[in-house]
Amino acid sequence: MDINHLTLLTDLYELTMMQGYFKTGNDETVVFDVFYRDNPSGSGYAITCGLDQVIDYIKNLSFSYDDIDYLRNQGIFDEDFLEYLAGYHFTGDIYAIAEGTVVFPREPLLKVKAPIMEAQLVETALLNIINHQSLIATKASRVVYAAGGSGVMEFGLRRAQGPDAGTYGARAAVIGGCDGTSNVLAGKCFDIPILGTHAHSWIMSFDDEYHAFRAYADLYPDSCTLLVDTYDTLRSGVPNAIRVFEELRAEGHMPKHYGIRLDSGDLAYLTKKARIMLDEAGFPDAVIAASGDLDENLITSLKSQGAPITSWGVGTKLITSADCPAFGGVYKLAASKPKGADEFTAKIKISENPAKITNPGNKTIYRIYGKEDGKIRGDLICLVGEHYDESDDLTIFDPQATWKKSTLAGGTYTMRELLVPIFIKGQCVYKSPSVMDIRSYCKDELNTLWDESRRLVNPQEVYVDLSMPLYKLKNELLDANHKK
Amino acid sequence: MDINHLTLLTDLYELTMMQGYFKTGNDETVVFDVFYRDNPSGSGYAITCGLDQVIDYIKNLSFSYDDIDYLRNQGIFDEDFLEYLAGYHFTGDIYAIAEGTVVFPREPLLKVKAPIMEAQLVETALLNIINHQSLIATKASRVVYAAGGSGVMEFGLRRAQGPDAGTYGARAAVIGGCDGTSNVLAGKCFDIPILGTHAHSWIMSFDDEYHAFRAYADLYPDSCTLLVDTYDTLRSGVPNAIRVFEELRAEGHMPKHYGIRLDSGDLAYLTKKARIMLDEAGFPDAVIAASGDLDENLITSLKSQGAPITSWGVGTKLITSADCPAFGGVYKLAASKPKGADEFTAKIKISENPAKITNPGNKTIYRIYGKEDGKIRGDLICLVGEHYDESDDLTIFDPQATWKKSTLAGGTYTMRELLVPIFIKGQCVYKSPSVMDIRSYCKDELNTLWDESRRLVNPQEVYVDLSMPLYKLKNELLDANHKK
Repeated sequence: MDINHLTLLTDLYELTMMQGYFKTGNDETVVFDVFYRDNPSGSGYAITCGLDQVIDYIKNLSFSYDDIDYLRNQGIFDEDFLEYLAGYHFTGDIYAIAEGTVVFPREPLLKVKAPIMEAQLVETALLNIINHQSLIATKASRVVYAAGGSGVMEFGLRRAQGPDAGTYGARAAVIGGCDGTSNVLAGKCFDIPILGTHAHSWIMSFDDEYHAFRAYADLYPDSCTLLVDTYDTLRSGVPNAIRVFEELRAEGHMPKHYGIRLDSGDLAYLTKKARIMLDEAGFPDAVIAASGDLDENLITSLKSQGAPITSWGVGTKLITSADCPAFGGVYKLAASKPKGADEFTAKIKISENPAKITNPGNKTIYRIYGKEDGKIRGDLICLVGEHYDESDDLTIFDPQATWKKSTLAGGTYTMRELLVPIFIKGQCVYKSPSVMDIRSYCKDELNTLWDESRRLVNPQEVYVDLSMPLYKLKNELLDANHKK
Repeated sequence: MDINHLTLLTDLYELTMMQGYFKTGNDETVVFDVFYRDNPSGSGYAITCGLDQVIDYIKNLSFSYDDIDYLRNQGIFDEDFLEYLAGYHFTGDIYAIAEGTVVFPREPLLKVKAPIMEAQLVETALLNIINHQSLIATKASRVVYAAGGSGVMEFGLRRAQGPDAGTYGARAAVIGGCDGTSNVLAGKCFDIPILGTHAHSWIMSFDDEYHAFRAYADLYPDSCTLLVDTYDTLRSGVPNAIRVFEELRAEGHMPKHYGIRLDSGDLAYLTKKARIMLDEAGFPDAVIAASGDLDENLITSLKSQGAPITSWGVGTKLITSADCPAFGGVYKLAASKPKGADEFTAKIKISENPAKITNPGNKTIYRIYGKEDGKIRGDLICLVGEHYDESDDLTIFDPQATWKKSTLAGGTYTMRELLVPIFIKGQCVYKSPSVMDIRSYCKDELNTLWDESRRLVNPQEVYVDLSMPLYKLKNELLDANHKK
């Protein structure tokens, strides 16, 4: 099994539909949008993430003989269609919002414009990759926000949902703001910092805790964080750590970075006591690192009780986004045009639930910033080809509550088109930044949000409006459907 | 990046500890146990899963030059240790419980007996693999239980936490009882049934719903499930589906399997109405398939309201185990012996929380069945070398509430050792069954549980007891630690 050859990473129905388009001679070019409906974890925003893996996936799309054989053996595909698959490669266009960008519900994070068979095949893998990494990047940004200035490490590999979840999850966590990961493979693959010291088994492999600590300190003279909760944090762990730190000080070998880590017990109580013990022994710069079932809520709560923790190791609840373990990205048909036609015909998916009705047409997105403060005023989804001039007044309105309008005076705002070309006619035209560069871009992106929208609980919504032409098109399609 | 080369899929601290053992000359052989403390999702049991991937991982363990270079560049590893890593392969023993077996908290699912450096390295990947697949297999078994006799399909790939989570997750879901998956790659890799028909985009790519249905029915004459909720389920979808079925009947081409699928709206109301419409049109054997945010609780609730759904497509909440997205497997040192010694010295990890105190020593597990009914009476964790005779009376007791005792009369019970050898001296001695064979074994395994322990909510606990020698050893170690 070669799980990296991801061409078959798709739902069977994509292939049965493809054969249907093939057999019925459907050679339309279509536009599919990837978008989501609700921010995860009650967040006021999400971070889009995973584009670099989407690029890899698209570049490597091709059916091996083995794949074709496997499909043939299903007994539902005809030879002419299998022949088509054998020669398949992606020839379409893809536009996407750069990784690490702050995004909001209902706006296209990625747009595929391609012959319908090609566009249909890639649905599942695109959603899988973007849903996963956007989920973890968003969660990480929340955890990092809760930690304030102190560092957050991603420590969840052992509880991640498989090797990829741990490895791509670590990538996404660093993009969302984590300082590094314990996952060595992620460090190697994505050139991100790896971090870690020792586990309880290190302590238990020695006759006593002191000798375990001392041996560790001798081995790693530059950086020495000792795990103090194997036997008894306050009566054994912290005193033994202080004994070792005192020895190192006396020997003139004080490590540059040193401190203790707690992985169990009441972290507020124990760290406050430990802080006093360390300070009294003359180690005010000893780091206190904590781990164990942390998430943004527990970190907020511990900090509000004054826990003097300066470094957070966050595992399970970050790497699985435990309170909301799926990002609800969907892939919906927005427009189509027959071969040779000039214009796209807009398509709409109706639902009894207004929030589930799609935005039709071949669209793009402008982000509107206040010129003075650089903060986001709102996003404007519009049709490709609409023109805006930053010196004109701009009226935006809530598409579901149209009486909510506001007008931005010309010259007081700037606009940025969010969707950028990634593939044009099957050729990749985009170079992904390094993960650490995406991380730093993401930090800047988060600063374009008002504090009110970053709040972890019940944040202020950022408005995503429709342009007037898009709003009219949508209503025409709804009316037409109603008459049918 | 080659994510299949998983040797670096480990936490950094495993490597820093390994270097520590290397530098301090620790050449002990140790025993580590993989076990978990709580069943996921409030279940009365779990299904252990992932062993075949553990075997692959162990077989392929080796550091490439590239890996060594990467580690060298971290600046914390010495050349002698890196040389050791370059020659590393696993030379130890691994014992495990077969995949698909029903398991309970605190019993070793897998046991590594190896030189400490080798045993330490594999911790993270073993936990990652077993935690993920055991989680999904357990969840799937609950969903399948809720569905009663009707079939469950795994449809979650697009919401899975990355490609592996979707693919290994589909494997685990089928082991837990799903009939198949939509994930074509999983179908190919694990030889499991793949299933699926069409999406809303198929319907939307035609001018109207009827022609979309008719085209689909013509393409797939053997099996035809039509998605009826694109525009209006009862006013458009079901009538158009019936029209197509009537045409096929009139033409003498009725498909072997046919029916409708609903993916939105109130599934109880809509399926009851649809059932009446299908029956009145003379299609009582039309399948009604449903999907959309399903899990074991919603399925139970829909069935209790009489929803006539005969096929369930379960996505997000199964593939992420949404209510409990991590399986808490841990890896704890249980025993060690210096090179050349005959006997293992038992090791214990103390905690203020009695449930977190580990079971010391080199252990095995016997499962005790009633001879007549084949149902599980309980599990007995004991030390390797203890001997039991099924013709003797057997007294078992709850290790945390020792007054809870019960005696099984000789001849009324049978015992089965659960841990079987997988690797001996680094050589794999075990051949995994096919996934479909594991699935069928798992079905038999679930039948060894009393109904009371399969109940989805508040199930009866199955007792996992300690043998008298193990119980005494544990208390001696606790006493000794207390005196220190």
